[in-house]
Amino acid sequence: MSDVAVGLDVGGTKALAVLVTREGEILDEIKSSTPHDAHGPAGVATARVLASQIETLAQRHGLDPVTLPIGVGMPGMVRRDGRLAFAPNLHSASGASFPELLRDLLGATAVAMENDGNCAALAEFAWGAGRDIENFVMVTLGTGIGGGIIANGELVRGQNGFGGEIGHMAVEARGALCGCGGYGCWERYASGGGLARLTTQWALEGRLPTLTARSGGAQSVSGEDVTRAASEGLSEAVDLMREVAWWLARGLANLVAILDTGHFVIGGGLSVAADLLLPSAREFLEDLVFGFAKRPPIVVITSSLTVHAGALGAAKVALDRQP
Amino acid sequence: MSDVAVGLDVGGTKALAVLVTREGEILDEIKSSTPHDAHGPAGVATARVLASQIETLAQRHGLDPVTLPIGVGMPGMVRRDGRLAFAPNLHSASGASFPELLRDLLGATAVAMENDGNCAALAEFAWGAGRDIENFVMVTLGTGIGGGIIANGELVRGQNGFGGEIGHMAVEARGALCGCGGYGCWERYASGGGLARLTTQWALEGRLPTLTARSGGAQSVSGEDVTRAASEGLSEAVDLMREVAWWLARGLANLVAILDTGHFVIGGGLSVAADLLLPSAREFLEDLVFGFAKRPPIVVITSSLTVHAGALGAAKVALDRQP
Repeated sequence: MSDVAVGLDVGGTKALAVLVTREGEILDEIKSSTPHDAHGPAGVATARVLASQIETLAQRHGLDPVTLPIGVGMPGMVRRDGRLAFAPNLHSASGASFPELLRDLLGATAVAMENDGNCAALAEFAWGAGRDIENFVMVTLGTGIGGGIIANGELVRGQNGFGGEIGHMAVEARGALCGCGGYGCWERYASGGGLARLTTQWALEGRLPTLTARSGGAQSVSGEDVTRAASEGLSEAVDLMREVAWWLARGLANLVAILDTGHFVIGGGLSVAADLLLPSAREFLEDLVFGFAKRPPIVVITSSLTVHAGALGAAKVALDRQP
Repeated sequence: MSDVAVGLDVGGTKALAVLVTREGEILDEIKSSTPHDAHGPAGVATARVLASQIETLAQRHGLDPVTLPIGVGMPGMVRRDGRLAFAPNLHSASGASFPELLRDLLGATAVAMENDGNCAALAEFAWGAGRDIENFVMVTLGTGIGGGIIANGELVRGQNGFGGEIGHMAVEARGALCGCGGYGCWERYASGGGLARLTTQWALEGRLPTLTARSGGAQSVSGEDVTRAASEGLSEAVDLMREVAWWLARGLANLVAILDTGHFVIGGGLSVAADLLLPSAREFLEDLVFGFAKRPPIVVITSSLTVHAGALGAAKVALDRQP
């Protein structure tokens, strides 16, 4: 039984590889770019990058890639058998089986695969801001919203392994069109992409006059402009961040009703704006949560593992699969 | 260890008590009215009715209420310690602890309590239309929408025991006002109450001309009028039932995204209209479910335990609590 594992967090632009102990200590890490205009069979170009990261870590620490436990976290729909059924942000890898690809490239025999939001949830549950919380939800606010659900102390993988795609819960049945083809998905309102969408909408409606003047046009105002201006106290930007916080709370409140979650861990790129979002979101929960007054206070905190959560969780999956 | 238990399903108007074996066989049953204008301490009037049902069943079968396992299923927020924190449809019992009340009235020592939707889910999982399905959701379409979630082969009770209140997931963030004080809750669109609300709305908008003429006024058209006319093929009624089916599918699709549920069991009063609702709902799922094409077909079937599901599940909770 190995005492260490490699965890890989593969995103649309970068892949992070970490070497992790059973106690969750990171011994080493490598960051690489994921290939963009990948040709050839699905996932092969991406798998080559991962294989190189794994080999480098193995060599540096005198480990054998053939027996080393390896966990791969990926965005999208990861099947229980390890195949990536669908990955909107990693098209070139859609349909690929990374356990098979890494066996071909490295002879690796102990490769496990899991959705990246689920990985983050497992890592926070084991070593982070959800430690020992038997019922909590990990919410990753990036371009979209990913996540992972821990219920009864276990990850909710669901029938196929696709559990935790909370960003595609519709909160506005006939609302904004989503990249998934649906309408009104939560992530169109409360993610980095949601902020960008609302920023353009508000700017075009004339509700961001100062930022529009500064940027030289309504279409040029970015989500980053809004978060920066909001942290400086510009009221139009503060108002828009409160709107995003309201939508964030709306989705969280739905998860409270469905799962009776009392604890949320917020991660992902937009969590850098946590100071602007979470105080308002907590305030809105009071109105939005079913039976709020009958519950203990609902905890909404930021990830403690931050950018490492996904890779750490992928390593955890690999370690847990060890016989 | 007892081989039988009493299960009670307490609703806003009726209480059903069943005597059940470990195999889920119903040996006997009693139906009573629940008291309406109850005075005195919370829950006492209701508890007296239940105590009388339990005593009658015990006497008929030579059982001792003191040691008999008793399970009580109730609508609303049932805490893990057995207290009914909040029951919008059973106000007089809000705040009561039925294990305590039944101990006082009967000397009963083995009383367990659970939310009624959770009870129904447990019963369908053990003996019904969800048997051996490790991940499924029970959806009870009554005046509102209740439910229970089975994930990883276990009931999702959540932090406090309030899990499965799926009817209070908002599907239209600034939509119709709900009895819970929130806006846009799923149950305002896809339950018996939702049908009634949409019926009045459509009638006032002139979209139910035939039914309005028959009833003598827009305000007089009922949900039952619509289901009856729809089953007779009246197109305006068929259209409205399709609208309700669309909303039903909208909420189901959200649960698929969140939980990766591939199996739904539909119960409750409105499930008598299943023939009118479910074929359309299944059709709408194709558009509404995230990544529909990457999943195996999603099963949506009616409860096989029908009106007994809640009481059977309450008995199951009691049997499972036995040492």
